[in-house]
Amino acid sequence: MTIGIGLLGLGTVGAGVAQILASPEGRHPLVGALSLRRVAVRDLQRPRPVSLAPEIIGDDPAAVVADPTVDIVVEVMGGLEPARSLILAAIAAGKPVVTANKAVIARHGAEIAAAAAERGVYVLMEAAVGGGIPIIEPLKQSLGANRIERVSGIINGTTNYILSRMAAEGADYAAVLADAQALGYAEADPAADVQGADAADKIAILAGLAYGGLVDRPAIPVEGIDRLQARDIDYAGNLGFVVKLLAVAQRHGSDPDGTEVLDVRVHPTLLPRDHPLAGVNGVNNAILVEGDPVGRVMFYGPGAGAGPTASAVVADILNIAAIRGLGAGALDPLLAAGSWRRCRLVEADRTCHRNYVRFQAADRPGVIGHIGSCFGAEGVSLQSIVQHESEGPGAEIVVVTHAVEEGRFRRALAAITARPEVEAVQACLRTL
Amino acid sequence: MTIGIGLLGLGTVGAGVAQILASPEGRHPLVGALSLRRVAVRDLQRPRPVSLAPEIIGDDPAAVVADPTVDIVVEVMGGLEPARSLILAAIAAGKPVVTANKAVIARHGAEIAAAAAERGVYVLMEAAVGGGIPIIEPLKQSLGANRIERVSGIINGTTNYILSRMAAEGADYAAVLADAQALGYAEADPAADVQGADAADKIAILAGLAYGGLVDRPAIPVEGIDRLQARDIDYAGNLGFVVKLLAVAQRHGSDPDGTEVLDVRVHPTLLPRDHPLAGVNGVNNAILVEGDPVGRVMFYGPGAGAGPTASAVVADILNIAAIRGLGAGALDPLLAAGSWRRCRLVEADRTCHRNYVRFQAADRPGVIGHIGSCFGAEGVSLQSIVQHESEGPGAEIVVVTHAVEEGRFRRALAAITARPEVEAVQACLRTL
Repeated sequence: MTIGIGLLGLGTVGAGVAQILASPEGRHPLVGALSLRRVAVRDLQRPRPVSLAPEIIGDDPAAVVADPTVDIVVEVMGGLEPARSLILAAIAAGKPVVTANKAVIARHGAEIAAAAAERGVYVLMEAAVGGGIPIIEPLKQSLGANRIERVSGIINGTTNYILSRMAAEGADYAAVLADAQALGYAEADPAADVQGADAADKIAILAGLAYGGLVDRPAIPVEGIDRLQARDIDYAGNLGFVVKLLAVAQRHGSDPDGTEVLDVRVHPTLLPRDHPLAGVNGVNNAILVEGDPVGRVMFYGPGAGAGPTASAVVADILNIAAIRGLGAGALDPLLAAGSWRRCRLVEADRTCHRNYVRFQAADRPGVIGHIGSCFGAEGVSLQSIVQHESEGPGAEIVVVTHAVEEGRFRRALAAITARPEVEAVQACLRTL
Repeated sequence: MTIGIGLLGLGTVGAGVAQILASPEGRHPLVGALSLRRVAVRDLQRPRPVSLAPEIIGDDPAAVVADPTVDIVVEVMGGLEPARSLILAAIAAGKPVVTANKAVIARHGAEIAAAAAERGVYVLMEAAVGGGIPIIEPLKQSLGANRIERVSGIINGTTNYILSRMAAEGADYAAVLADAQALGYAEADPAADVQGADAADKIAILAGLAYGGLVDRPAIPVEGIDRLQARDIDYAGNLGFVVKLLAVAQRHGSDPDGTEVLDVRVHPTLLPRDHPLAGVNGVNNAILVEGDPVGRVMFYGPGAGAGPTASAVVADILNIAAIRGLGAGALDPLLAAGSWRRCRLVEADRTCHRNYVRFQAADRPGVIGHIGSCFGAEGVSLQSIVQHESEGPGAEIVVVTHAVEEGRFRRALAAITARPEVEAVQACLRTL
């Protein structure tokens, strides 16, 4: 039994997939049953790191989907369109899809899932989150006995590389970003990474799997690392924390009708130095899953790159190939991972967490008392208040709160900054 | 569709499984399709942490296997017999088996796998290694595209707890063991843990999955932590290493007939402090998988305990239930994970690794020169030689070698200890 593979895209990941398919020796024997039948590229002239028979390469992706010898369509072109339309076309043709495209799944997941369920085909996406790290499959197939309390992850390698270097070198964001771009760790246009959109796409996907219902991607609060200052990484370090761009999906409660209420968010976050995610440095990714009864399990590895991502893509192909061989008419409910309950995001002012705040204030007696009183009036208890010398006139006051509802916290901040001796909130970071 | 579950054993893990099945709310909806039909216990009078209808509890495990309302047999009784016979009886009756029993799988895996393949039933064992950590499923279903280079793990919680405390407190093995026993982290008879047999059972299972062929469990070289001395943990620390009981399965090469040659072993091992496994402390487990093209991925979490282990057992039940619902006649080759090539262990003197050696020697000029010359004569290059003050007369000399074939290394040791000024090899530990 040979299974025909059609490849949409032959960039870094696509070439990695083609290389695996071309050298099955020593891999699972099912890899040998996969045959690359047709490939679509945007630019036929561009040199490729993998040599393929020229007759299977073309520039018409629709022809790959339509090719009757293609049994599984692999979408590794990226971007929203034409990826979305091609995935839907493959589904309509009854062909299972493997994709590494977190953006299209996070933004059009509902439409794609509905089409796949109706047509009875799989759409798998292990490579969309965490590169080579097995995290989608374990969430679907190994943790189903659990009530998931929280999924938190370092799931963007570019920002983790930048933050690791800022912490190690005490360097400024702009300088490290420029260096990361020169070294190829950051894109020429780094916006999707450094502003958090990429991590938000990924946590939307993980939340959907962990909680069994789709979440509204555009409604996820997202804050990137592009306004993060070296001084806050330094001050956080003095308090025993490291700063990471964390993507979190957390159970907040449930509505009377059974809708699961989730707190899903992406922002720079202070982690205690002994937290399992605190030691994840460089371009590595890690995802921590907390559930009842499993406790805390963590998945760690390379979050990007041709080899790791191709490993995940081929894993999905193998799963489809394996189950296809059974000749079953129905979909495996774990592998297909359809929604099984309604989920919604919690209102922003109802979220509850610890905070790190840095105020710029006049260097005057009574300022710390004022700050403490304003927090106290809203019932916000504090872990620490530390005054640092400011570069300019005045003082910097760093506060770490205990867990507090966001609404109360924001009211306290408003009261604090209403007084003239507190000039501004210079930084406000969430804290685990 | 309801799926009948029969439970062999209602100890810590069995009770954890029963608790999950009794409270499906908030878990994957397939949990709600599982119905606990019959349970076998050894002692009917013993109190249990879970309340079950008395009519489903008995003391005849064969009756559980034979019960026509039992569709899946869950073996969580432990031990070799009657576990082996009951698993084989379930297979003979055409019933899939889920087991948490690493000993029976490691020792009787070939017999069980052959019977399961012939009868066409699944025997799943996620809980046998790493407690709640998903590692068996990812090896089977998420990493099949890879040529696995090495699987290395901290897969025994008891010994990792003891080693973590020895390192943190500079304490002696015997004292920490006694305390661990008092606290319930070590068994009254700790032999299987501290002598390495438990870790060897588990690495045998992981090697079989990672390399697609069964390995000869009794032939695996095993060294425990029961002779490890606090001074070596201390000296290793000075050199930048931590000491862990590591279980390793590593590709060594292949025979002309295609047989995969593996270096599989369990022993206390020095890890560089920045190695991903070096920070795994207490009763936690972690498994690092290195493959081409995925690179390094790590799985971390609680290696034991009722909740985590039950999470893994129920995951296996869910996988069987999900695929059973498809009504397929054949086995999914990834989930069933049959052998697909022959594997054998490498000859001991052909293995290749770094070493830490502590010699007791006369405190006399020329001893270090003698040691260095003997290693040099065998082509063993050294990373460091450090002389420590001994408690008694003489000196302690600690050597860390670069990677060397075991045969050469042993010949060098024999030459070194042949001279009267070198009294003994006091410790010899492998080093990553």
